Amino acid sequence: MSRPSGEGAVLGLDIGGTAIKSALVAPDGRALSAVAHHPVQAAGRAPEAIVGTVLDRAADLVDAAVAQGVAVRALGVAACGVIDESAGVAVFSASFGWRDVPLRRLLAERTGLPVVLGHDVRAGGVAEARLGAGRGREVFLFVPVGTGVGAAVMLGGRPFTGGHWRAGELGHVVVRPGGDRCGCGQRGCVSTLAGGPAVVKRYRRLAGLDGGAPADAATVVRLATEGDRIAAKVWAEAVEALTDALALGVTLFDPSAVIVGGGLGRSGDLLFHPLREQLAERLTFQVMPEVLPAALGDEAGCLGAGLLAWDSLGDRTGAGTPTI
Amino acid sequence: MSRPSGEGAVLGLDIGGTAIKSALVAPDGRALSAVAHHPVQAAGRAPEAIVGTVLDRAADLVDAAVAQGVAVRALGVAACGVIDESAGVAVFSASFGWRDVPLRRLLAERTGLPVVLGHDVRAGGVAEARLGAGRGREVFLFVPVGTGVGAAVMLGGRPFTGGHWRAGELGHVVVRPGGDRCGCGQRGCVSTLAGGPAVVKRYRRLAGLDGGAPADAATVVRLATEGDRIAAKVWAEAVEALTDALALGVTLFDPSAVIVGGGLGRSGDLLFHPLREQLAERLTFQVMPEVLPAALGDEAGCLGAGLLAWDSLGDRTGAGTPTI
Repeated sequence: MSRPSGEGAVLGLDIGGTAIKSALVAPDGRALSAVAHHPVQAAGRAPEAIVGTVLDRAADLVDAAVAQGVAVRALGVAACGVIDESAGVAVFSASFGWRDVPLRRLLAERTGLPVVLGHDVRAGGVAEARLGAGRGREVFLFVPVGTGVGAAVMLGGRPFTGGHWRAGELGHVVVRPGGDRCGCGQRGCVSTLAGGPAVVKRYRRLAGLDGGAPADAATVVRLATEGDRIAAKVWAEAVEALTDALALGVTLFDPSAVIVGGGLGRSGDLLFHPLREQLAERLTFQVMPEVLPAALGDEAGCLGAGLLAWDSLGDRTGAGTPTI
Repeated sequence: MSRPSGEGAVLGLDIGGTAIKSALVAPDGRALSAVAHHPVQAAGRAPEAIVGTVLDRAADLVDAAVAQGVAVRALGVAACGVIDESAGVAVFSASFGWRDVPLRRLLAERTGLPVVLGHDVRAGGVAEARLGAGRGREVFLFVPVGTGVGAAVMLGGRPFTGGHWRAGELGHVVVRPGGDRCGCGQRGCVSTLAGGPAVVKRYRRLAGLDGGAPADAATVVRLATEGDRIAAKVWAEAVEALTDALALGVTLFDPSAVIVGGGLGRSGDLLFHPLREQLAERLTFQVMPEVLPAALGDEAGCLGAGLLAWDSLGDRTGAGTPTI
């Protein structure tokens, strides 16, 4: 572990559907340790039990840091779902079954630290804006493509949250009217074609497989490169759907760049080459944005949570960055 | 005409495809005169000639106001197309054939007044935010439905412009993949179904009419209410397409309200009743926004231009409202 500066560190947590990621973060956003992964095992567990796991994990991590001599100044937490950042409440989480969990208060009571609660995708966008591929850009979209497809709309380094903390749900724009039913209740969302589970499910369906391999989208992508025609078709449809969604995002937000992250965002040229080509073909009057891979990978949420925590400390001295 | 206050007035101009609208605007955004319409007659005329008409009209209006004893402090101009508000340049206008016309400089040279150049839809959004249906709302969409469909994304009273002054092109989100070719070059844009000319064209096509009546969308709407089945079908498809576009806007911007203006925005319950009902059906996890008629009608662009002009005067004393 790097030595924290005299200003100490904050603990950044990224609470995702399968794991909590954590890192100690310096004031400049540098991770003072490799990002650690802690499984959550949400499936089949009561929402309250998962809250308990999060609280336990946060307290353990703070204790461990303090035991190593780190002055932990605050806790920054980024979570999936609908997050009311003002109230510090996890309004809704499909992964955990959460409804109106006052996570900020619960974590502050448990750890005795100042806590800031953010949204995983928006926090990732903040990290990419200040430390990653979005540096120096006034308007960009951060689009993680993993289990689902999300977007943070970044304006001057700050995420646009909308009127009810739900802006940027790019995964649930309808690109195939009347298409497959999405988990959100709509039909034809881009998430029914372009997210990791969607790619796996579509491959299995077209290949006539009941369960069994491939277990993840990366395998489907690999099969596509090896000449598997079904995999190639599924991947092409995923990229086409993602292109349509990005075209919508470009038409409405007019970003200078689209920064693609998440698990499938690490597919390299297999994703970025057709995505750039097809997006350029699809756009007419719009300005073609740069389409770039995210720079921070899995760490974006953690580092962004840490930055939000530092901002919240800064706010107390008037030096923080407000969010819109 | 109402008497201008001791602070004088600004002249607000809204340069549209068929007419220039003008009004003298008080510091509080009140129109000191009824909004006047001056035809442009763009069809078949050279881009430079139309610029000449705009300059002549602006100079005449300033002269007339001064002759009436009004102290004209500045000129606020809202124009259609792509407007670079920082540079004061009309980057592109399909209606006028304009490319990179330095309208702010030309108008300032001609009138000797400070000039601010804005975008017609964004200026209308500013007016609705401060004077109309958007008052007190943090995040709303102003959606004029007229010749085309546009949107101003309003955040805290200010329009979101995007990275290249092209944000909010709601008329050109694709809602019918592979559908009719749009003037913008894409296929299946909402403007191919829901704008005024689209409604008329589709009615004529389905009714087998070559030219001839109906001449405008309002007539088609009226025919629909009178039991004309083709008109009812065309109008239903227009409302459905508009619903799909608004659903996309809600999914990405999460507004608390959608304020619908423009010519077709004056269709009353014939528009708002099905639009609200269908949008509520279409949305699932999103928060249903209020769907409201615009309050300022045709005047929004003019009044917004006037407000921008007052802001620009305020900026010189540090009191203005910055735009994002």
